[in-house]
Amino acid sequence: MALPDSWLTSPPRPSVQHTALAAERQQVLTKPPGSLGQLEQLAISLAGLHGTDRPSVDPVRMVVFAGDHGVCAEGVSAFPQAVTAQMIANFASGGAAISVMAKELGASLEVVNLGTVGEVPELPGVIDQIIAPSTANMAESPAMSSRQVESALSSGDEAARRAANVGCRLFIGGDMGIGNTTSAAALACALLGQQPTTLVGPGTGLNSEGVARKARVVENALQRHGPDRDPLMVLASLGGFEIAALTGAILGCAARRIPVLVDGFIVSVAALVAVHQQPAAREWLLFAHRSAEPGHSAVLEALDASPLLDLGMRLGEGSGAAVAVPLLRAACALHNRMASFTDAGVSGKAEE
Amino acid sequence: MALPDSWLTSPPRPSVQHTALAAERQQVLTKPPGSLGQLEQLAISLAGLHGTDRPSVDPVRMVVFAGDHGVCAEGVSAFPQAVTAQMIANFASGGAAISVMAKELGASLEVVNLGTVGEVPELPGVIDQIIAPSTANMAESPAMSSRQVESALSSGDEAARRAANVGCRLFIGGDMGIGNTTSAAALACALLGQQPTTLVGPGTGLNSEGVARKARVVENALQRHGPDRDPLMVLASLGGFEIAALTGAILGCAARRIPVLVDGFIVSVAALVAVHQQPAAREWLLFAHRSAEPGHSAVLEALDASPLLDLGMRLGEGSGAAVAVPLLRAACALHNRMASFTDAGVSGKAEE
Repeated sequence: MALPDSWLTSPPRPSVQHTALAAERQQVLTKPPGSLGQLEQLAISLAGLHGTDRPSVDPVRMVVFAGDHGVCAEGVSAFPQAVTAQMIANFASGGAAISVMAKELGASLEVVNLGTVGEVPELPGVIDQIIAPSTANMAESPAMSSRQVESALSSGDEAARRAANVGCRLFIGGDMGIGNTTSAAALACALLGQQPTTLVGPGTGLNSEGVARKARVVENALQRHGPDRDPLMVLASLGGFEIAALTGAILGCAARRIPVLVDGFIVSVAALVAVHQQPAAREWLLFAHRSAEPGHSAVLEALDASPLLDLGMRLGEGSGAAVAVPLLRAACALHNRMASFTDAGVSGKAEE
Repeated sequence: MALPDSWLTSPPRPSVQHTALAAERQQVLTKPPGSLGQLEQLAISLAGLHGTDRPSVDPVRMVVFAGDHGVCAEGVSAFPQAVTAQMIANFASGGAAISVMAKELGASLEVVNLGTVGEVPELPGVIDQIIAPSTANMAESPAMSSRQVESALSSGDEAARRAANVGCRLFIGGDMGIGNTTSAAALACALLGQQPTTLVGPGTGLNSEGVARKARVVENALQRHGPDRDPLMVLASLGGFEIAALTGAILGCAARRIPVLVDGFIVSVAALVAVHQQPAAREWLLFAHRSAEPGHSAVLEALDASPLLDLGMRLGEGSGAAVAVPLLRAACALHNRMASFTDAGVSGKAEE
């Protein structure tokens, strides 16, 4: 096992030429210039990322990475740990939010099982890449060995490779792992130098007492870890399998020129790790939504991201990104198919 | 010509029973309760509006109402008045934003021409219900006669009747009319008792000098009109043909139990007039987006509306509502097709 190339090498840059052409086209379509708001910049960005005059996000690939967290021993989640394995079965049978959305959108969905405490039978659409039944408890020891971090990053990179092989034009990573908002908050604190009280939130539904306990757990883990901000060391100390895999998938997509539509708190923290390792990966990221999890806003700000949606969602699985896919499709359809003022014989703006 | 029944009669109420059943269902789906944010309330509202356990918004009907404004003589728009007629042709030939979105969404699109200064040839998909080449200049006289207001309201009500006849489950009204942000701002000022400087904005792209001129035009029109807040009188003094028709369509939909997805500034002002006339119509309204036109926020607040999107759009035509349709579809799909904790064998939240 070694680190993937995408971890070690800076990703390519989007096409400056196609970005400029798309920006020009937006000025001549039959609408007041700027009147499509964020949809205009979205189409322009996608044109540059895909190096094309007529951007499209299809086919969309969704991959949910699942793994359990040793830190659950500290009582940091409102749901029992068995739910991680149970939800993998729910993804496979089509009953989970992300499964419903994948079908609704005509997107392909993969589930990668990186290790759960509960038992998971063999299931269609679930790829087993088990690292261990769970990470270690970051309150007591590093969550992962370096070998485990490398495995998780490689699982993510391989998912990006499979996505590239099927011609994917938009990648959505999702997360499943009871306890993972604790790990994500710790990672964000370590990388951004912020206090746990700022970034720790209720996750799936802790009360205020639970949130305070969770913040103390993160505080202790950060003291164990020390001030080291090297992304690999931070992942090993505080990360979850699925978060490291998401980081690997994001870097793997950027390396292969696949735009990533970033979901909520967990995936944004994985993106934060990815951008700390390879700053140029930022250009391959589009941001779907602002989660209700309070720490998400600080992570979005650190990534200079203005997400498309703010619906108070906090479900994970990639569900917020899935809900935003039609906005990207709309941006592309309008960009590609609207008439120009000249073609439609419509008068332009009067001189002022 | 007489006032439509939907103007004179209070609309029916949504089903309390189906609203309650849908709210219960949201609590047992395999997700942390509340974690789908606004999508949960959206599904619950649609269940109540449609009186069903399994809500759906399809088929979606879009109707763009077009008409010219006499107030353009005062130099209140960045675009020449000829554009209204030219855009009707662009709607028909598929090059306008709303035409692209209708096709993208598989929605039916009607255009109702209420009267333009420019000539409009006979066009497929365009229904001619010409009232006059334009409204009168509200700076000099009432914009419409009572007979013209009744015609416009009836055009809207007829569009709702046609929508009901094709089994429409979601209605989107759109507007086209150079100068109509001036009319809409004046209507909102009259109904809300606010100052023009608060509600007048750049529309399709006026500079600050243009906005100041536009505010003075609205101020003068309001002084002409006086303090009367009767919706019919306000429409006659200040309204446009397409705004009155949108008001009629909204009331016509509420009367026929069809939810309306409200677009931006113009349609929201039509909704404001509708709700001033029939307060119970408010229950049939869902709000798609917050426009970049600055006056929209005050109108949304008056309607106690929290729209789904805030993308900086300001195009009109119903385009912002069209872009939001997939969010309603997602809300319904998740509500109807997600597994329950019991069905999926997933453990619920731990006791605290």
